[in-house]
Amino acid sequence: MEVYLIRHGIAAERGTYTNDDERPLIEKGRIKTKQVAEKLRAINLKFDLILTSPLIRAHQTAEIFQKVGLTNQIEIFESLAPDSDINKWLEWYSQFSEPNSNCKLALVGHQPDLGNWTEMLVWGTVKEQIVVKKAGIVGLNVPKIENPLGKSELFLLTSPKWLI
Amino acid sequence: MEVYLIRHGIAAERGTYTNDDERPLIEKGRIKTKQVAEKLRAINLKFDLILTSPLIRAHQTAEIFQKVGLTNQIEIFESLAPDSDINKWLEWYSQFSEPNSNCKLALVGHQPDLGNWTEMLVWGTVKEQIVVKKAGIVGLNVPKIENPLGKSELFLLTSPKWLI
Repeated sequence: MEVYLIRHGIAAERGTYTNDDERPLIEKGRIKTKQVAEKLRAINLKFDLILTSPLIRAHQTAEIFQKVGLTNQIEIFESLAPDSDINKWLEWYSQFSEPNSNCKLALVGHQPDLGNWTEMLVWGTVKEQIVVKKAGIVGLNVPKIENPLGKSELFLLTSPKWLI
Repeated sequence: MEVYLIRHGIAAERGTYTNDDERPLIEKGRIKTKQVAEKLRAINLKFDLILTSPLIRAHQTAEIFQKVGLTNQIEIFESLAPDSDINKWLEWYSQFSEPNSNCKLALVGHQPDLGNWTEMLVWGTVKEQIVVKKAGIVGLNVPKIENPLGKSELFLLTSPKWLI
């Protein structure tokens, strides 16, 4: 199954909100995220489901994707919050029934987790050597097997700069 | 230093030429490669040097990049031919004097070698799990140290579909 890992757009600076979870996207972040979403829609990408980190900046990113028609369904997934555990998602994935044979999933979250999940899925180990910029995207072919760690293919890694 | 690995564009089918090295780009391949090159130029990318595999389809790809102004200099590098040995390139790289502090290199070659070189540079091992499509691009930050294997960062992997 194609699984896309999407980093939230540019948000208010760290430290500007008492609760870091509440930092929202700033205008530049909303604009760039919308441009990324529109480009993906223009090449006919559509997600059956977007799972998002519960943090505001991630949820807002997912909502922008929904507004341009990239998905009909967003669900909050607690284990996409920072320092997230890929095993929680793998457990969810093993039980996820694909709604169609061409099913595509998107996960909206944070760095360095998304880069680390990518490395875990493709190589089975983490070296923190994947750069995922804000509103950047990773594309993976994740096989529907009990343990896809080290068994997935990487076909896309891009920042807004190259996409829009 | 930023190092870009570029796969040649769509070429004549395997078996249509007695000598496989002579298969040229077909029209669709030339058009897509030019679109990719123009997009890269539009975002102000410029290579100080393109090293290309000696095979016709790779050399033609490099020439299209040169024609749109992505570089002033192309050199044939024998060890970018299929089944190429990354150590030959590493030897060259260790002796390469950067013409400027923001120097960017491009290497035009073949699959699965380019994907394998990427894995060697970033993770130090090869699992053949990186998909590089024709006229697709890999972007790496390769440190200028004696042995950058397992020490480089991956910041871009894209096929023409996402770029143009």
